[in-house]
Amino acid sequence: MIVYLNGSFLPKEQALVPVEDRGFVFGDGVYEVWRIVNGQLFEADRHLARLTRGLGELRIAPPAESEAARIQEIADRLITENGLADGEGTLYLEITRGVAPRAHHFPPAGTAPTVFAMARPFVPPEELRAKGVTAVTVPDIRWLRCDIKSIQLLPNVMAKQAASERGAFEAILVRDGVVTEGSHANVVGVIGGEIRTHPTNNLILPGITRAVVLELARSVGIPVREEPFLASEISRLDELFIAGTTADVMPIVRVDDQIIGGGVPGPIARRLQRELRAHIDATCAAVSA
Amino acid sequence: MIVYLNGSFLPKEQALVPVEDRGFVFGDGVYEVWRIVNGQLFEADRHLARLTRGLGELRIAPPAESEAARIQEIADRLITENGLADGEGTLYLEITRGVAPRAHHFPPAGTAPTVFAMARPFVPPEELRAKGVTAVTVPDIRWLRCDIKSIQLLPNVMAKQAASERGAFEAILVRDGVVTEGSHANVVGVIGGEIRTHPTNNLILPGITRAVVLELARSVGIPVREEPFLASEISRLDELFIAGTTADVMPIVRVDDQIIGGGVPGPIARRLQRELRAHIDATCAAVSA
Repeated sequence: MIVYLNGSFLPKEQALVPVEDRGFVFGDGVYEVWRIVNGQLFEADRHLARLTRGLGELRIAPPAESEAARIQEIADRLITENGLADGEGTLYLEITRGVAPRAHHFPPAGTAPTVFAMARPFVPPEELRAKGVTAVTVPDIRWLRCDIKSIQLLPNVMAKQAASERGAFEAILVRDGVVTEGSHANVVGVIGGEIRTHPTNNLILPGITRAVVLELARSVGIPVREEPFLASEISRLDELFIAGTTADVMPIVRVDDQIIGGGVPGPIARRLQRELRAHIDATCAAVSA
Repeated sequence: MIVYLNGSFLPKEQALVPVEDRGFVFGDGVYEVWRIVNGQLFEADRHLARLTRGLGELRIAPPAESEAARIQEIADRLITENGLADGEGTLYLEITRGVAPRAHHFPPAGTAPTVFAMARPFVPPEELRAKGVTAVTVPDIRWLRCDIKSIQLLPNVMAKQAASERGAFEAILVRDGVVTEGSHANVVGVIGGEIRTHPTNNLILPGITRAVVLELARSVGIPVREEPFLASEISRLDELFIAGTTADVMPIVRVDDQIIGGGVPGPIARRLQRELRAHIDATCAAVSA
């Protein structure tokens, strides 16, 4: 695999960062993951906007690689080098506050951020999406700036691992009784034909797929209420799904011991899967040679 | 500077980790900082016990470098290589969950943790300790497992930076109105001759210096109450200080716009500074050649 690191394209095995990179010692950085379809970045601009906002919130000086044209260049090269022009993939981009002798406060002005990018093939899990997956609930112990897509991901790691060990696909995070999101996707419920999901605030990541799916829902007349639901309400849900860059719309048919919607994906999730797929294909149409 | 990385001693500039180290992409690791005095690790065992507990909580397989004898060997070599046998220094040790293709769940069993250690000179800031420092209050937005000394330090970074920019030495973190701790030290108040500090639970790091200082206080008859105080009570404090591996007992004489104890270090802080210094010197006495 050829990856990008600070201006160079090189084999992943040769892509190394200093031990005093602030990403490695403080988790002091942000990241983004774009879906690659037909060699194109799905919702390129929205991911970029979120990245830019995150850099601003953390006051990491935006590197050249956070500009649209440069991201596209890096993506194009990684797509070509790694044979991802056909089919699907993901582009991962991480920007940290750079390398400096370890001290909590910011390093001197002018310290160059570290920029790492990699593109990997991605095979949409169509079979899982068709039959749905299971989830477990775990306490949401994350920090209070979940709106920033930072690399502070240890609680997400522990949540996902808890799910895996219990044979589940996803962990549903619950804070103060409220369902916030998944380990790396947003959580969306359906009650009485209405979509219910946590509003975007400091407690959840403003997911790009979440936003697209809610727009698609509204465009086809499905009512959307951006209000959280309680973990205690899960048993009353008609449908439940997660929305994310690689999850797309992934139906959840069981949470802990509670069967959702008879144990099969519901009509709204299936409708939104189709709408999202059509939207992806329309906006990332294959370019004729 | 010669540092340690995964079994090798090498110049810091050559100490590099793969971009897919879980420390770099997830902040998935723990660390410790020991004080080095006269070439010896102060409270070696207590730091080791905390490290071991952290690895256990995060279920990172303990590497050989988390054993007392091996840590001592690494420390001895770093102390020698870097000329730290005299005077003071710090030993930093970080252990991450290792290198694996990026995925939130744990990597395959047998994935070797990454182990990085460095020793640096440390000059105790005696002048600051004598006259005291200032602090600002900032919201405590950290995750809910602050008892684990993980590298999830972005909120600490932002807090320390906020303090620096406001000309203060330290940030005092406040959660739900309660003073929890500093950006990388515990916070201790004195009211009516009694020490008051947040109890050890999931909201603070169980500081080694905090524990030692509380023991020293009790041993000289100063009452200790491990109960939190409110940010709104700061103005009523007779004394305030932080306790940490490099802070020792650092008096805080102003918080935001509030002068504490007339703006000078109080008698209990000064007494504990002397007791701690004597304890450090007694337990890390210079070994005759």
